[in-house]
Amino acid sequence: MLSFESDYNNGTHPEILRRLCETNDELLTGYGADKYCASAKEKIKKACGKDDVQVFFTVGGTQTNLIVIDSLLDRYAGVVSANTGHINGHESGAIERTGHKVLALPHTMGKLMPDVLRKYLREFYLDETFEHTVIPGMVYISHPTEYGTLYTKQELTELSEICKQYDIPLYLDGARLGYGLMSTGTDVTLNDIANLCDAFYIGGTKVGALCGEAVVFTHNNTPRYFFTRTKQHGGIMAKGRVLGVQFDTLFTDDLYFRISRHAIDMADKMRDAFRKKGYKFFIETITNQIFIVLENKKLNALAKKVTFSFWERVDDDHTVVRFASSWATTEQSVEELAALL
Amino acid sequence: MLSFESDYNNGTHPEILRRLCETNDELLTGYGADKYCASAKEKIKKACGKDDVQVFFTVGGTQTNLIVIDSLLDRYAGVVSANTGHINGHESGAIERTGHKVLALPHTMGKLMPDVLRKYLREFYLDETFEHTVIPGMVYISHPTEYGTLYTKQELTELSEICKQYDIPLYLDGARLGYGLMSTGTDVTLNDIANLCDAFYIGGTKVGALCGEAVVFTHNNTPRYFFTRTKQHGGIMAKGRVLGVQFDTLFTDDLYFRISRHAIDMADKMRDAFRKKGYKFFIETITNQIFIVLENKKLNALAKKVTFSFWERVDDDHTVVRFASSWATTEQSVEELAALL
Amino acid sequence: MLSFESDYNNGTHPEILRRLCETNDELLTGYGADKYCASAKEKIKKACGKDDVQVFFTVGGTQTNLIVIDSLLDRYAGVVSANTGHINGHESGAIERTGHKVLALPHTMGKLMPDVLRKYLREFYLDETFEHTVIPGMVYISHPTEYGTLYTKQELTELSEICKQYDIPLYLDGARLGYGLMSTGTDVTLNDIANLCDAFYIGGTKVGALCGEAVVFTHNNTPRYFFTRTKQHGGIMAKGRVLGVQFDTLFTDDLYFRISRHAIDMADKMRDAFRKKGYKFFIETITNQIFIVLENKKLNALAKKVTFSFWERVDDDHTVVRFASSWATTEQSVEELAALL
Amino acid sequence: MLSFESDYNNGTHPEILRRLCETNDELLTGYGADKYCASAKEKIKKACGKDDVQVFFTVGGTQTNLIVIDSLLDRYAGVVSANTGHINGHESGAIERTGHKVLALPHTMGKLMPDVLRKYLREFYLDETFEHTVIPGMVYISHPTEYGTLYTKQELTELSEICKQYDIPLYLDGARLGYGLMSTGTDVTLNDIANLCDAFYIGGTKVGALCGEAVVFTHNNTPRYFFTRTKQHGGIMAKGRVLGVQFDTLFTDDLYFRISRHAIDMADKMRDAFRKKGYKFFIETITNQIFIVLENKKLNALAKKVTFSFWERVDDDHTVVRFASSWATTEQSVEELAALL
Repeated sequence: MLSFESDYNNGTHPEILRRLCETNDELLTGYGADKYCASAKEKIKKACGKDDVQVFFTVGGTQTNLIVIDSLLDRYAGVVSANTGHINGHESGAIERTGHKVLALPHTMGKLMPDVLRKYLREFYLDETFEHTVIPGMVYISHPTEYGTLYTKQELTELSEICKQYDIPLYLDGARLGYGLMSTGTDVTLNDIANLCDAFYIGGTKVGALCGEAVVFTHNNTPRYFFTRTKQHGGIMAKGRVLGVQFDTLFTDDLYFRISRHAIDMADKMRDAFRKKGYKFFIETITNQIFIVLENKKLNALAKKVTFSFWERVDDDHTVVRFASSWATTEQSVEELAALL
Repeated sequence: MLSFESDYNNGTHPEILRRLCETNDELLTGYGADKYCASAKEKIKKACGKDDVQVFFTVGGTQTNLIVIDSLLDRYAGVVSANTGHINGHESGAIERTGHKVLALPHTMGKLMPDVLRKYLREFYLDETFEHTVIPGMVYISHPTEYGTLYTKQELTELSEICKQYDIPLYLDGARLGYGLMSTGTDVTLNDIANLCDAFYIGGTKVGALCGEAVVFTHNNTPRYFFTRTKQHGGIMAKGRVLGVQFDTLFTDDLYFRISRHAIDMADKMRDAFRKKGYKFFIETITNQIFIVLENKKLNALAKKVTFSFWERVDDDHTVVRFASSWATTEQSVEELAALL
Repeated sequence: MLSFESDYNNGTHPEILRRLCETNDELLTGYGADKYCASAKEKIKKACGKDDVQVFFTVGGTQTNLIVIDSLLDRYAGVVSANTGHINGHESGAIERTGHKVLALPHTMGKLMPDVLRKYLREFYLDETFEHTVIPGMVYISHPTEYGTLYTKQELTELSEICKQYDIPLYLDGARLGYGLMSTGTDVTLNDIANLCDAFYIGGTKVGALCGEAVVFTHNNTPRYFFTRTKQHGGIMAKGRVLGVQFDTLFTDDLYFRISRHAIDMADKMRDAFRKKGYKFFIETITNQIFIVLENKKLNALAKKVTFSFWERVDDDHTVVRFASSWATTEQSVEELAALL
Repeated sequence: MLSFESDYNNGTHPEILRRLCETNDELLTGYGADKYCASAKEKIKKACGKDDVQVFFTVGGTQTNLIVIDSLLDRYAGVVSANTGHINGHESGAIERTGHKVLALPHTMGKLMPDVLRKYLREFYLDETFEHTVIPGMVYISHPTEYGTLYTKQELTELSEICKQYDIPLYLDGARLGYGLMSTGTDVTLNDIANLCDAFYIGGTKVGALCGEAVVFTHNNTPRYFFTRTKQHGGIMAKGRVLGVQFDTLFTDDLYFRISRHAIDMADKMRDAFRKKGYKFFIETITNQIFIVLENKKLNALAKKVTFSFWERVDDDHTVVRFASSWATTEQSVEELAALL
C-alpha cells in the first residue's frame, strides 16, 4: 500500500534517531536546562538570522498554539484568524478553553488576506459599542495554511504593518513551516518571518521529529515567566532533552531544510504526474499538500492501492482528496503512484 | 561525578530505545490509533487484573493531572489533596488554571491520612454555609508521595471507602508508581490500586520512558469524549506511536516492574550504607527516594563528588537532601557512593 | 426630546418602586432565602403552568447567559447559536471566558432555523474527525431575537425535537420575553416555552424592573449546586430581596404581561404610523423593536427631536435605525412621533 | 425579635430610596454612562482626596473581587491572602474559576501581617524551583477583615512598601469599609487607603445600599478596557443608574460616613453592654462586628429573642457567635439587647 495520507505517520528521521541513541546514556539536567536544548536554541537563532529572537520548545501544535495565544492576549481580547484556521476548527476548542474567542474572518484559499484584516479592524473601532464585544488582540495565521497555500512576502509584510498599526502581535503557526520555506515558488524566508512576525513556531512533528515544536519570539518579547506559563498548561517535559536533541539535529547541517526540500521535490513530481494525467486540482498549492478533485469511481479504485485523506465532498460523484508528501516520501513510491493514475 | 539527583536525568531504557528504532520505519495511524497503543492498552489492562479498566496515554505528569482532574470535577467543585501534594505546590497552578481550587489538608509524611479526610468531609457538610464555599469533588493522592512514602493497603482501602461514602472519585498520581509497587515493604499491588481508585496514572517518564504516562479509569468510568478533553488541553500527540511503543515495551515481560525493582534494590543498598555509617534519616522511606539530614560541612564535601537534591533547610548547620535511585542506577555507582559516606 | 432609543433607559415600573419602598424596613434573610424570592418563584412557576419548573434569580442578561451555559455544557462542548446571537457578538466574550466556543450558524432574520440546525448536527457527526473539534453541547436561541423577530410555535417545536434527538438542552434567552409573549402575531405562550425548552430566562431588566432576570429550569433539571455555580460567577446578591420583591410584583396580577402588552400596543401604533407615511421597514417585526430604513437627511432631521438607535449602514444615503417602545412608552409620545414622520 | 445577625438584612437607607424614587422617571443612558454615575465618581474621587483615582461601579462583593483580581494578575500569578480571607473561603472558588490560585498565608486575627508577607516573599524567590510554582502577583487584604479587625496605618504602610518592593499591587476589599473608617480606634483614613493601596473597593451593599460596590484604582492604573473585562464577567448593569444614584447619594453630605459612624456607635454601646455583664470576647474588635463566646445554655436562651450568627464551636459547652450592628441598628434595639444579657 502506498501512503500519501499525512506527514505524520512515519517515525522520525534516521539522523534524529541516531542522535537519540547516541546521547541516551548521558546524564542531563531536566526541564529543558540541558546542553542540547541550549545548542538547539543557538542554532535556531542563527537560522533566523536575528540576535534578539528567543526560542522555547513545546511538545505539539495545539499545545503550542494555546500556550502562545493565551500568553499574548489580554483577558478582554480575542485572536483574529481565517475561519479555516487550525485554531478555529481542529483544536477541540483549546483556545476558547483558555478564555479567548477566535474572531474568525473569511479566508481566501486558507489565507487571511490583508484587505480583509484591514477592513475588519477599521470597522471594528468605528462601532461605538465595541467595548461590548471581544476586542481583537492579536492575529493568527498559518504558513503553510490548512489548504497548503502560502503567503507572499508582500502579503506577510502588509499583515505585519496592519498589526503594528493596531499595536497587536502577529503570530504564525508553522506546523509545516519547512514545507513552506522550501517550496519552489515562495519568496518568504525564515528571516522574513522572524522580521515580520512577533512570534511563530517551527514545526517539528510534521517535519521529521517524533514530536516537538520550536516557539520563537522575535524581538526579546517573550511573555514574562514563559516557562511557568508553559508548565501551567502541562507543556514542560521533565526530559526536555527529547526536544533538545531532536531540534539540535534538525538544525545541524540544515537537516530541517534539506528534508523539507525533499518533500517538496516529491510533491512537485506528484503534481506533474497529476497534471499530465489531466487530474483536476481543487486548489493550486506549492507545498507538500496536493488537493485533487476525484471522480468517486476513480477514488474507490485508487483507494485499494494508495492511502490519501478525504478533504471534502463536491457533489454526488466527486470528492476532494488530499495527497501529502513528507521528508520520508520515496521517489519510488511517487513513481508507483504516477503509474496508478 | 556520581548522580543521585533525580530519576529523570537519564535517557530511556535500552529496550525502549531498541523498539523505537525497530518500529521507526513503520507507517502508523496518528493520534493514538496505532497498533502499539492498542497493544500497550491491552497489556496494561491485563497487568491491572481487571477487564473494565480503560487506558489512555498522555505526555507528562502535570498535563495528566490537569486533564484528569478537570475531567472528573464539576464546575462548583475542588480537589482535596494533602498540602504537600504535587498539584498544590509544584505544577504552576495548573489545576487552578482549569478553574478548580485545590483544597489542601494537612499531611502526615506526605500522605493524606484517612482520619484527616473523614473529619474534613464530615465537618464540611455540617457548615450551613457550605454552598458559599468550594465543594469537595474528588480526592487526589500520590503514591509514592512527594516524600517518597507509601500508603498501606489499609489506608488506601479506608480512603476509598470514604470517597465512596461521599460519592466522589479517588484519583492516584502514580508518577513513580513502579517504585512504589516494587518497594520491599509495601502490601499494595497494581490490582489493589485498580480496585480501590477510580482513576490513576502509571508514570512512564520517571520509570524508564522518554516521556509518557498511562491514565487508567478503573471501571468503565472514562469521562465522555476523553480524547477531545485531552486534545483541548494540548495533550494529544500526532505521533501517538511514541507513547504506544514505549508503554508496549514497558509492559512486555514485566519490564516496568523489573526495572522498578532494580531501582528499589539500589535504594535499599543505599539505605543500608547510610544506616551503617550512622546517617540520620529525615523520613523513613521504602521507595527510591532517600531523605538524609546532612551537616553542611559533610554536604559540601559530598557535593564535590555526588549530585543530589536540596530538600529543605533544618538549621544553620544542617540540611535535608534527597538521594534518588532509578531504573538506571548501577550497583557500581551505589558502591562508590557508599565508599564516600 | 422623544425617546425611542431603548427599553432600558427608564427607571422601574411605579408598582415595583412602591413595593420596594413598602418592604424596605423589613428584616429579611440574605442571599435569596427571603419570603419575596419564595413567593416570586411560586408565581412564576404558576405562570409557566408546570409543577416541575425551578426558578432562580440573577442580576443581568450576560451574567445569566454565562452562568446557565457554563452550567449546562460539558467541558468538551460548545453552544450552538445563530451568528447574530447576543452571546456571539455582544457579551464581550463572556461565554468563551468560561471556556466554551460559540458555534455560530447562519441566521434568518436573527433566528436559528430548524433546517439549519438539523443539517449542521447531522453533518457534524458524519465527519470522522469530529472529536478533534468542538462538540455541540446545547442550543441557544433568543426570543425575541436580536432582530426583534419571533419563533413560531412550529419552529420552536422543531428545534426542541432536534435537541431531544441529539440529547442536548435547548436554552432560550428571554431578555425581552414579555414583548415576545404579548406580541399580536405570536402563537407561542409561556407554557409552550416551558414545555419546549430545557431552560430559559424571563427578562426583568428590559421589562419594567431595575435589574434582574428569572432563570427557569423546566423539568427538575437544575444543574447541581446551582447556587454555588452562580456565586462562583459573582451572580448572587447579598440582598436577594431586591430581585425577589421585583419579580414578586411583576408576577402579581399579571403585571409583567400587562406592561409588555402595553409596549406592544405602542409599537403597533408606531408601525402603523411608519407604514402610513410610507417608511421602509428593514425587517418586519411584531415585537417592541422596529427597524426602519431612513434617508440620512431624514435621519438627521428626526434626530433633533427623537432619540433612536443606529442599527447599520445601508449605503451612502441610507441607514437602518431602531425605534424601541417599552412598558414606559406613553401614547402621547407615540402620537408626537407620528406627527414628526 | 431583635436582629443582630448581619449588616445586609435590611433594605436600603431611606435617603437612597428617596433618590431612587425621585429619579425614577428620568430617561438615562444605559451601561453606567448616566449623569448619576458621573457625579458619584466625582464625589468619591473627592472623598479619596486624590485626583488620579478612577472609579467604577459593580454589583456585589464576590463579583468585584473576581473582576479586579483577574484584571490585575498575569496568567502565571496567584493572589496572596490571609487564609481567612473572604476570597479564600467564602466565594465558592470564584478566584480559582478565573484561573488563579489563592496563595493563603497564616493570619493574625484575620490580618495578613507585614512580617508574614515579607518572609513569604523573601523565601519564595530563594527557592530555585520557584518557576514550577505559582508566582505571587498581588496581595489581597480586607479592611475590616472577616474577623472585624483593622489594620493600623503602620501595618498598611508596611504592606504597601513590601508590595512596591516586589512590584505587585496591593488590593483592599472594603466590603465593610465604612465601618472600618469610622471605627473609634482606627488611624486609617480613606485618603491613606487611596495612597497606600493600588486598588480597593468601597462596599455599598453592607453599608446602606441595596447593592453595589465602588471600585477605585488609585493612580491612573485602571486595567485597560476595564468595562469590557467587567462585562465579560457579567458585571455590567444595563441600568447603571441603579448604582450611580445610590453611590451619588451615599457620597452626598457624607451620608456614607455618617451612617457608618452610627453603626459604630451602636456597636460600641453593645460592646459596653457585653463587657459590663462579664461576657467573654472571642476577639477584641473595634468595628461593627462583635464576637462573643457564649455558653450554649445562654446561647439557646438568647436565641429565642435575638438573632445573631454562629461563628465557630469552642467546645461541647461553648460557642462563638457574632453580633453585627449596621447603619440601620436602632438605639432602642441595642438597649433591649443589653436588657437581655
